[in-house]
Amino acid sequence: MNNIKLGILGGGQLGRMLIQAGLDFNLTVSVLDPDENAPCRNLCEKFVQGNLLDFDTVYNFGKGCNLVTIEIEHVNVDALFKLQAEGVKVYPKPESLKIIQDKGLQKEFYRENAIPTADFRLLQDQTELAAHAEFLPAFHKLRKGGYDGNGVRRLTSAADFPKAFEAPSVLEKLVDFEKEISVICARSANGEVKAFPVVELVFHPEHNLVDYLLAPAQIAYKLQRMAIEIATHVTTALDMVGLLAVEMFLTRDGQILVNEVAPRPHNSGHHTMKANATSQFEQHLRAILGLPLGDTEFHCPAIMLNLLGEAGYSGEAKYEGLDETLQEAGVYLHLYGKKYTRPHRKMGHLTVLAPTVEEVKAKAEQIKNRLKIIA
Amino acid sequence: MNNIKLGILGGGQLGRMLIQAGLDFNLTVSVLDPDENAPCRNLCEKFVQGNLLDFDTVYNFGKGCNLVTIEIEHVNVDALFKLQAEGVKVYPKPESLKIIQDKGLQKEFYRENAIPTADFRLLQDQTELAAHAEFLPAFHKLRKGGYDGNGVRRLTSAADFPKAFEAPSVLEKLVDFEKEISVICARSANGEVKAFPVVELVFHPEHNLVDYLLAPAQIAYKLQRMAIEIATHVTTALDMVGLLAVEMFLTRDGQILVNEVAPRPHNSGHHTMKANATSQFEQHLRAILGLPLGDTEFHCPAIMLNLLGEAGYSGEAKYEGLDETLQEAGVYLHLYGKKYTRPHRKMGHLTVLAPTVEEVKAKAEQIKNRLKIIA
Repeated sequence: MNNIKLGILGGGQLGRMLIQAGLDFNLTVSVLDPDENAPCRNLCEKFVQGNLLDFDTVYNFGKGCNLVTIEIEHVNVDALFKLQAEGVKVYPKPESLKIIQDKGLQKEFYRENAIPTADFRLLQDQTELAAHAEFLPAFHKLRKGGYDGNGVRRLTSAADFPKAFEAPSVLEKLVDFEKEISVICARSANGEVKAFPVVELVFHPEHNLVDYLLAPAQIAYKLQRMAIEIATHVTTALDMVGLLAVEMFLTRDGQILVNEVAPRPHNSGHHTMKANATSQFEQHLRAILGLPLGDTEFHCPAIMLNLLGEAGYSGEAKYEGLDETLQEAGVYLHLYGKKYTRPHRKMGHLTVLAPTVEEVKAKAEQIKNRLKIIA
Repeated sequence: MNNIKLGILGGGQLGRMLIQAGLDFNLTVSVLDPDENAPCRNLCEKFVQGNLLDFDTVYNFGKGCNLVTIEIEHVNVDALFKLQAEGVKVYPKPESLKIIQDKGLQKEFYRENAIPTADFRLLQDQTELAAHAEFLPAFHKLRKGGYDGNGVRRLTSAADFPKAFEAPSVLEKLVDFEKEISVICARSANGEVKAFPVVELVFHPEHNLVDYLLAPAQIAYKLQRMAIEIATHVTTALDMVGLLAVEMFLTRDGQILVNEVAPRPHNSGHHTMKANATSQFEQHLRAILGLPLGDTEFHCPAIMLNLLGEAGYSGEAKYEGLDETLQEAGVYLHLYGKKYTRPHRKMGHLTVLAPTVEEVKAKAEQIKNRLKIIA
């Protein structure tokens, strides 16, 4: 335990919460991130400022570690292959990451592995769109580099073609879904898999970020079992080691379709820090350290609210309404160590707990707009 | 929130868990500790190596902060008075600390404030003992500097006088107790107080450290209420800001007597990191930051087991039986970031959770001796 030198690619809030959980395991942590003010900066033994997509930077960083993981999937995977070949443990494995990094490969992987997903077309560039006018309405997604709603556009008709991406992309049939749900699985190198209970996501209508998350999802038990089975299947098929967040659509006709996956801690698991005995961060560490996976049961219903920088404000963050927000019993604050706010920047989240789903929803509605992050 | 510069006096495991909880509040933390390898060393923006009892060291450290707290009570209180006078917020207040640091003043304070406690005598030195032979059996405690069972000796008869302390001390009547219990209270500067549920302590027969802790304490509801009332009264009477751990005896004739108090996070509150929505560490921060205190309810019964360095081993710590220990559902590991073990050194703790008290006890008994810390 004392001899593990963990390298984390990415030094944002997910890495920060990973380090927070990792304190309990005496880990020696190094972090690589392009931002010199990254949230992990002062919480690790060694912080390296550098480009996560550069082969040499990632390779040289990883050489000093005996275990490498990620908190963002956009990293140089060739460097990870080389590190793995040279004996550094890399979890998730570069083979899994390579598929996940490319939304085109991801979709093909689903098809090959009988994983239910929305119908799609792969496009080399914008000019190929014309041949797929009949496929609309659809989401148009960049194959690589998309993040947090960036790299996704909705195309309703041929009139939208000019706003499409020029780069290789996926055209994905719009799904008439009733709910969007997520299951976070953890898998160890020995194949043990455990899933957290299903959560329900509600997106902000404008900026396409998760705005509100309810755990457990209010769906039939049969659908919960189905969602967990699908997520477990995807996790195993991808040969994941560590966490895999599986976002899914529950369609109006009772199907569950895999939307996207993230091979790391995920927004839809933040509530586990308060509502579950094992948090997603601890679970990720247990999986990559080869420790038995923790219990995934929840103590009580929970809602997670993202705290986004208020539109129209940029600069040093001020938290308006903090006292009133925390006045309510069962409301917990998690800030991400970011000094400066800008519109829609993820500055933190709130977790709301209550004994019943009705109460947790009522409480969340009440506090939802009390805390504003301005400058 | 972004402008709080918190200074922590002491950089041990309590400070480490405080920083871990403090990440959620974006605190900028400095730490002062005499040990250059203190567990907090790499987790703070600024680490100062220095003597906690030296006036200048504490004063100069505190001048760079706008809020100062402690994780150990043996600190230079005169420096804290000066910092307070110069506008630095010092919580707990130096006035409270001054009483708590001196077990003699502590006992007199209990008597003056009608707080039930075991009968006692104050002694200047060893020679005064002879006059109190009729008072035995008693615990003989150093007025200042005792910690974790150090500075306490049991005197059964006059034959034990030669092993008594030479320094100013308290002679405290032995209490025929049924159980030893603890209540951790938090109090804000505005006077709000919240208590965590009563816990039951079991001491290791040899090295006088808490070996096993059960939450909630298995005592009658009326006694729980009484313990919480007494702890709340002590907390308010001492004008505490932050946590106060109140250790009490439950006597065989149904009385509750205050034994000792600790003005900081305490061993008897470690389980709250897993079994409660608000941990003692978050609660301490809420109290000293002036935020509303968090909910103190527990999710489920819990047992906390100290992980002590095995007798006979000194050197770089090895964790024997770690996998088997964590194999059981509901068992959580917390290590303190200490590289080297020595006999009885507090290296970490385990928290065990289960839906009922019977189950949590059975589980704790099963895993109790599985994990050994050797070198």
